[in-house]
Amino acid sequence: MRKFAKIIGGAALLAAVPTLGWAQDAPTLESLAANDAFVFNTLLFLIGGFLVMWMAAGFAMLEAGFVRTKNVSMQCLKNITLYSVAGLMFWVVGYQLMYGGGDYFGKFALMSFTPEDVDTGYSSYSDWFFQMVFCATTASIVSGTVAERIKFWPFVIFVVFLTGFIYPIVGSWEWGGGFLNTDSFIATFGSEFSDFAGSTLVHSTGGWAALTGALILGARKGKYVDGKVNPIPGSNMTLATLGVFILWLGWFGFNGASQLAMGTINDADSIAKVFVNTNMAAAAGVIAAVIYTQLRYGKIDLTLALNGALAGLVAITAGPLDPSVPAALLIGAIGSLLACLTVPLLDKLKIDDVVGAIPVHLVAGIFGTLVVCLTTPEITFMAQLMGVLAVAIFVSVVSSIIWFVMKVTIGIRVSEEDEYLGLDQAEIGVPAYPEFVSN
Amino acid sequence: MRKFAKIIGGAALLAAVPTLGWAQDAPTLESLAANDAFVFNTLLFLIGGFLVMWMAAGFAMLEAGFVRTKNVSMQCLKNITLYSVAGLMFWVVGYQLMYGGGDYFGKFALMSFTPEDVDTGYSSYSDWFFQMVFCATTASIVSGTVAERIKFWPFVIFVVFLTGFIYPIVGSWEWGGGFLNTDSFIATFGSEFSDFAGSTLVHSTGGWAALTGALILGARKGKYVDGKVNPIPGSNMTLATLGVFILWLGWFGFNGASQLAMGTINDADSIAKVFVNTNMAAAAGVIAAVIYTQLRYGKIDLTLALNGALAGLVAITAGPLDPSVPAALLIGAIGSLLACLTVPLLDKLKIDDVVGAIPVHLVAGIFGTLVVCLTTPEITFMAQLMGVLAVAIFVSVVSSIIWFVMKVTIGIRVSEEDEYLGLDQAEIGVPAYPEFVSN
Amino acid sequence: MRKFAKIIGGAALLAAVPTLGWAQDAPTLESLAANDAFVFNTLLFLIGGFLVMWMAAGFAMLEAGFVRTKNVSMQCLKNITLYSVAGLMFWVVGYQLMYGGGDYFGKFALMSFTPEDVDTGYSSYSDWFFQMVFCATTASIVSGTVAERIKFWPFVIFVVFLTGFIYPIVGSWEWGGGFLNTDSFIATFGSEFSDFAGSTLVHSTGGWAALTGALILGARKGKYVDGKVNPIPGSNMTLATLGVFILWLGWFGFNGASQLAMGTINDADSIAKVFVNTNMAAAAGVIAAVIYTQLRYGKIDLTLALNGALAGLVAITAGPLDPSVPAALLIGAIGSLLACLTVPLLDKLKIDDVVGAIPVHLVAGIFGTLVVCLTTPEITFMAQLMGVLAVAIFVSVVSSIIWFVMKVTIGIRVSEEDEYLGLDQAEIGVPAYPEFVSN
Repeated sequence: MRKFAKIIGGAALLAAVPTLGWAQDAPTLESLAANDAFVFNTLLFLIGGFLVMWMAAGFAMLEAGFVRTKNVSMQCLKNITLYSVAGLMFWVVGYQLMYGGGDYFGKFALMSFTPEDVDTGYSSYSDWFFQMVFCATTASIVSGTVAERIKFWPFVIFVVFLTGFIYPIVGSWEWGGGFLNTDSFIATFGSEFSDFAGSTLVHSTGGWAALTGALILGARKGKYVDGKVNPIPGSNMTLATLGVFILWLGWFGFNGASQLAMGTINDADSIAKVFVNTNMAAAAGVIAAVIYTQLRYGKIDLTLALNGALAGLVAITAGPLDPSVPAALLIGAIGSLLACLTVPLLDKLKIDDVVGAIPVHLVAGIFGTLVVCLTTPEITFMAQLMGVLAVAIFVSVVSSIIWFVMKVTIGIRVSEEDEYLGLDQAEIGVPAYPEFVSN
Repeated sequence: MRKFAKIIGGAALLAAVPTLGWAQDAPTLESLAANDAFVFNTLLFLIGGFLVMWMAAGFAMLEAGFVRTKNVSMQCLKNITLYSVAGLMFWVVGYQLMYGGGDYFGKFALMSFTPEDVDTGYSSYSDWFFQMVFCATTASIVSGTVAERIKFWPFVIFVVFLTGFIYPIVGSWEWGGGFLNTDSFIATFGSEFSDFAGSTLVHSTGGWAALTGALILGARKGKYVDGKVNPIPGSNMTLATLGVFILWLGWFGFNGASQLAMGTINDADSIAKVFVNTNMAAAAGVIAAVIYTQLRYGKIDLTLALNGALAGLVAITAGPLDPSVPAALLIGAIGSLLACLTVPLLDKLKIDDVVGAIPVHLVAGIFGTLVVCLTTPEITFMAQLMGVLAVAIFVSVVSSIIWFVMKVTIGIRVSEEDEYLGLDQAEIGVPAYPEFVSN
Repeated sequence: MRKFAKIIGGAALLAAVPTLGWAQDAPTLESLAANDAFVFNTLLFLIGGFLVMWMAAGFAMLEAGFVRTKNVSMQCLKNITLYSVAGLMFWVVGYQLMYGGGDYFGKFALMSFTPEDVDTGYSSYSDWFFQMVFCATTASIVSGTVAERIKFWPFVIFVVFLTGFIYPIVGSWEWGGGFLNTDSFIATFGSEFSDFAGSTLVHSTGGWAALTGALILGARKGKYVDGKVNPIPGSNMTLATLGVFILWLGWFGFNGASQLAMGTINDADSIAKVFVNTNMAAAAGVIAAVIYTQLRYGKIDLTLALNGALAGLVAITAGPLDPSVPAALLIGAIGSLLACLTVPLLDKLKIDDVVGAIPVHLVAGIFGTLVVCLTTPEITFMAQLMGVLAVAIFVSVVSSIIWFVMKVTIGIRVSEEDEYLGLDQAEIGVPAYPEFVSN
């Protein structure tokens, strides 16, 4: 029962036509269709883009909640800086590397957009914006793992390489039409590599970069002592919870807008299905982690419930369109359980991942990528495995080199004294909560 | 003065047409109109849906701010869990109960969507998503009231019933075309029951479930002692404020997208009017509470100002389209004042509502539903009253049975010792703010 | 590789046409084009509007993070109240003053919308909503500067004048077609005044109001003692960081939707370009502040990095469409550096700006307005300067009068004792963090 008082006839509608600004030609059915599709597609990129941009805030809050108070300002600083650096680097070089089809460095991205771009059916600026925020997400993944002991500037330098080169090169292999998508690859492995919104290209790329960073950096002082694991609780669970809700919200843009078009019934329906599957995988991730930790530990672990949501989201990201809802639930639940199982494994290996980014983004990302071959019939397991391995090898090797070269030159780790004091006092001078008495 | 350098003629537009993908047939005026309407409608559900999903974060922050530090992690856990459970239950059974027209349990929701669904003019997935987040909102309302003393698992079980059965059944009565919308109901009471976005179907449903929970659960230890009311201040006002801003933002989706269509000038204009009235009711709610508490108590009560915004929002939700702006202001202000007056009344009755959900969602929800008969001429007071009463009786009775059966079997309340320790330590083991020294 | 199982032919599309509700007339090409443009334009205002509304939460969090714990509840209260008052005043009088073309006070805004409004190509309600949130932003700017010592009610009274009269009058000069946009102004100064989204009309208006407030109110006790500046650190850096991320997100709506139309390829592309430039200016603002504070102070100042983002955003706001990306980066970086340089200057002048709103909104706003003459060839420096000066004189004089009259009548500053106690205890009675032991 929702009526509206105004009765608007064809005459008033017609009168409004001049606002459309069809200056050159009278509109035709084809030109109107093209116009509307262009607006819809561009709008999709912009809405998806601002939702994924918002994920940068989600990572900032999640990480600020998972570190100790003495490192909170630093974690905030790193997150806003990495998002800024990602934007700059993806403009200077990343976008061209990723989508330039080999025409690297020929011109700055965004300076070459010309009227002919219109024929793509969307605004090139909107595409750049949408792709840029994915690049930034990759860097966000790293900052949590290496928190509480890495120096600020070496971290920023790593982000420069990651967002300017590593991620764009990896992305170019599939989304830029590279070797994971060629006829010879398909002939060899039975299908192209398929990664709808980036379980591998974004999340496991960030995960490998984080893992190599954690290994080369070493664990926080006091975490692993005499063969014992000392848990270091995060300082603020409301921030961590807020962060996860922000990420969950942003993921609708991350996965939904990766449909890349919204002008037709088919595309709009696909986006809606992606929304549903994305939500269900996250929900299943929460429920799986809640039940698992209750059964396994006798108490529910909030941090694993939160990371369970994220692991579910990461797992569905490689293929959120094809699975049925029950399949999406299963994928999310398994992704979450894999993350839950990986957390103690990392501790056994003395790999100190402050926020759990490796279980969430790397492990669930690999699982989500491989499982695509079960939900999308024409995709083969071998193609998925090859993509996962290619990214694993490239990102691990290049990241290791960068971390290692910095380690032996400028140094990547703060002094033991500074680590004890906290990075906020050592490197920033602005404590996060100056008035609160802490233990 | 906003020019754009590109000059795009009909030729370039035409060249972009292939991106539309009209594979089967050449587009016609009718098919283009249908296509665009479908995309607009689906987009409305998706934007509205993600805004209402974001309200889950708003409730989490509001409640985490209103409980004591020792129960904050638990409140975060409950909120992310209830949102997840709502998604699962609304898929397993809720959506079919609500919109299946009696074809209950015949099939899982979302597994039956077929190409013919296109003729509805929107993606069925987008509709499911939008309806699901409303279902989750109903559960969010409950979690605040019963905070700080309910056990985790009994709460989750209640959410299973609320989101899988209670809310969908209530919703089916009106939005599913049920008895509040039949010819015989209209003949008896003068009009159908009218509830645009759910002052009764969502908010008072949650409110009754919360009220019965509070009654059967009992008050927190120390709240009412020897006939005296001991206020228990919330631990974090910035979180509560953030929560209210999130809810206010989300409410634009809650009410605006309840127009259910955006393809035409009329619908777009209606959505815009709903935005304005929704905002004005909330603003009036704040202003009314600020003035009232200043006059009544000599100091302004921030918690009532925040709840005043929410009460204004709840009150306008039953009919945000028909009122003029002054009427919307009045509805918001009265809703807020009713909530302000209910808070001490509940204390007098020793009903312990930790966050004020009963004043906000139940009292303002009933008021907002009844007042529709003044702003929408064809709706009768009796029809509105019948709807309110039907929901009151059904939800109260069924909720009471569920709470009571759990109370006498598995128990719903933590031990006195655990309540003193706090639920975070007792049931989760993850304190929210481990480093902060608290009083 | 994103397929969709459904094959939808022209027949199904055609069948969906009735949902469009073309009751009166059969659709024509012109009426469909007008319909779609109306929906797109209205949707732009609504999305832009809710994003800018969200900025109110950003200011609330930023300011709550930058004040001391004893004034945090008050800062939350002021922010939610000012947003509410802005909505009310902009409806009662502001919108008519700003866009009424001299027909002041003739009728309440929004009560006069009639079907003929449709010919504008957008919903009048959506336009009002979008303009209202800009009005509220102006007030948000003031509340941070005068925090921690202003009384609640005098602040609210100032907001009444600012949002009902000062901002609407200033806005009318350009956006309402006033004297900064007349033939005689253009003849005199070489071009009209150009301010795309309000570097001057919104941000420096708020800035001047804040500056006069800070001057007339005086500094906080203890800030400037015996010629020494005692820094008073903000209590919560995560809130401040969250606030900046919220503002950054909201700014996409602030600048993007200021394109005011989205129905055509040109407009959609322009919005996308505005998104990119807005993001890049903020990113450059962060990077510039990080590098500057590292070089200047030897440590990175998180508060300046955060304000650097905002200064970059303010600076690009006057002209986010015309600059190339490198120009946008430069504008953001310079805006940020100017803000960094202004902070110590204000301290030297003993102007106590609690959150840095004057450097960010006033200084960067003026810079951003003047620099438009370099990026938009047809705009002259003199026209921009005249706009800046007109706003400076009018807002400073009127604001000073209001602050001063209140100072000598009802008083604007709390007692020294109340300032020491904190406004939360003195005026609200609800401390923000009651359980935390503070220094």
